[in-house]
Amino acid sequence: MPSIPKLYAFLRGEILPLDEAFLHVSDLSIQRGYGVFDFLKVQDGHPLFMNEYLARFYESARLMGLSVPVPDHTLKAAIHELILKNNLPLSGIKMILTGGYSANGYNPAAPNLIILQQPLSLPDQALVHKGIKIITHAYVRELAQAKTINYTMGIRLINEIKARGADDVLYHHEGIVTELPRCNFFIIKQDKTVATPGQDVLPGITRKHVLELAGSKYKTEEGTITLDDVFAAKEAFLTSTTKRILPVVQVDDMIIGDGKPGPVSLSLLADLISLEQAQLATGKK
Amino acid sequence: MPSIPKLYAFLRGEILPLDEAFLHVSDLSIQRGYGVFDFLKVQDGHPLFMNEYLARFYESARLMGLSVPVPDHTLKAAIHELILKNNLPLSGIKMILTGGYSANGYNPAAPNLIILQQPLSLPDQALVHKGIKIITHAYVRELAQAKTINYTMGIRLINEIKARGADDVLYHHEGIVTELPRCNFFIIKQDKTVATPGQDVLPGITRKHVLELAGSKYKTEEGTITLDDVFAAKEAFLTSTTKRILPVVQVDDMIIGDGKPGPVSLSLLADLISLEQAQLATGKK
Repeated sequence: MPSIPKLYAFLRGEILPLDEAFLHVSDLSIQRGYGVFDFLKVQDGHPLFMNEYLARFYESARLMGLSVPVPDHTLKAAIHELILKNNLPLSGIKMILTGGYSANGYNPAAPNLIILQQPLSLPDQALVHKGIKIITHAYVRELAQAKTINYTMGIRLINEIKARGADDVLYHHEGIVTELPRCNFFIIKQDKTVATPGQDVLPGITRKHVLELAGSKYKTEEGTITLDDVFAAKEAFLTSTTKRILPVVQVDDMIIGDGKPGPVSLSLLADLISLEQAQLATGKK
Repeated sequence: MPSIPKLYAFLRGEILPLDEAFLHVSDLSIQRGYGVFDFLKVQDGHPLFMNEYLARFYESARLMGLSVPVPDHTLKAAIHELILKNNLPLSGIKMILTGGYSANGYNPAAPNLIILQQPLSLPDQALVHKGIKIITHAYVRELAQAKTINYTMGIRLINEIKARGADDVLYHHEGIVTELPRCNFFIIKQDKTVATPGQDVLPGITRKHVLELAGSKYKTEEGTITLDDVFAAKEAFLTSTTKRILPVVQVDDMIIGDGKPGPVSLSLLADLISLEQAQLATGKK
C-alpha cells in the first residue's frame, strides 16, 4: 500500500503541515461566510494559466473590499514552494482569502490568506463520452463576477440533484440561464454557433479559453440564452478548471440533440487539452 | 484598569478558552461559507427567550440539511456552563453550526458546533431618542427563513452605508421591502396599524414579540410593504435581539413622519423592555 504523502499548506504567512492549518473561530468566513477563493490546476509541477487565475483572485478580493495581504510575486513564490514540498503529480491549488479575525464578528479585519494543495482527478473518460444529465433551478448567484465562498444554494441542492438522478444543476433567472454552481455553461446552436451566457456568470478561465478556441472555427456569442434555447440546442456542455469540457446530454426531462456528446463539444475538448499541453511545454522550458 | 476576563467557548463537544477555539481550514464555513447560527441575549446570568432561539437554530439547521449534533437539553447545559464560567453581566450567546470538515471541500460532513459568549452593549439611549437614518438596496436574502452565515451583501454595503452618512440598509425587491441585514423592519401607518413585511424575511424573535405586544393595542399586519408605504408612514423602526426597537427617522432622502421617533415606536419599546424584565423575573425564580 502506497504511503499517503503528508501535505503542506500556506496559512497566514507560513508554510505548515495541512493537518495543523486552523483558523480562529472569530474569522469572518466562520462568522459570516465572508471570503473569496480561486482554484488552479497543477500538472507535473507546473501551475496552468497561473497568471489568469491570480488576476481573477485579486479582482474577486477587490470586489469584496478585501485586500490580498501579499503581492502577486509573493503569492506565486508560496505556490511554487507548496508544489515543491507536496510533490503531487496532478493537483489543484486553492487560494482562500477570508474577511479576517473580526473583533465584532461583522466588520472585516486584516484578511487571512490560505493556500491549499490537494490531489486531483481528471474527468472520467467514460463520463465524457456518455455525457451528463443536469437539472435546472431558479437562482442568480449574488455578485456573480466574484468567486466568493458562498455556495449555500449549490450545496443545498446536492440532495435534490442526486434524488433526480442528475449530475449537476443549471441556474436560471426567469428562464434566462446563467451558470452551474462550479461551472460555466455553453450550447451549440443548430447553426453551430458556440454560445454562452454573457451576464450574471463567473468569468471562468476555462470559459474564456473555450471561447477563444471556438472563435477560430465557429461563430461565438456571449449573450442571453433561455431555457428554450437550451432545449433547442444541437449540443451543450459545461466548462470548469477540473472538468475541462463535459458534455451535457439531458436538461431536466429534455434530451439535448441526439442525447450523445456532439462533435463540436468533443473537438473543442481536444483543442482545450492541446492548449493545456502547449502551456505545460512552455512552462517546462 | 479592570482586568479583561478570560472567556471560554464551546467547540466540537468541549468547553475551552476562547483563544484556543480554532477550526481546521477544511471546515465548510471556510471552504464554502456553509453554516447557520443564532444569537440570544443573556442578562444577569439568564438567557432570554432561550427556547425560542434554540427552536429557530434547529430549524435553520434543518433547512440547510444540517443536523445539530446534540439534543436541545445538551445545548442548554453547554450554554449554562458557559454563562457560569464567563460570568458576564450582559452578554450575547452565539451558536454556529458549520457544514463540518469536508473531505472534498464541497459535500457536508459531520457538522461542527461552536458556542461563543461575548460582552454586549444595549443600544445607546441617545440614538434611541434621535432615531437613525437608513439607505435602501435591491436584494433578497437567499433562503431568508433560515439564519445562514451568509452576510456577503450586508458586509459589502458597510462602506456605502458609512459614505452616505447612514446607520444601516433596508433590502427591497422591486420596491417591496423585506428586512435589514441583521434586523427586521416595521412601519406605523397613518391609521396606526403596525405593519411588517410578511415574506422573504427572517422570522425574528423580537419581531414576533413586537407583533404580539402591538396586537394588544393596535391593528397589526404581516404583508406586502412597498417603499412608497415606507415613505408615507407615520413612524418606522427596526427590531433585533441586540437593538430591541430602534426608531428609523430617515430612509434614503425621505424623512419619515416628523423626523423624530414616534410615540407608537417608543411605547412598544417600553412594552418590549417590560416583557424582557418579566422573563428575567421568571427565570430568576
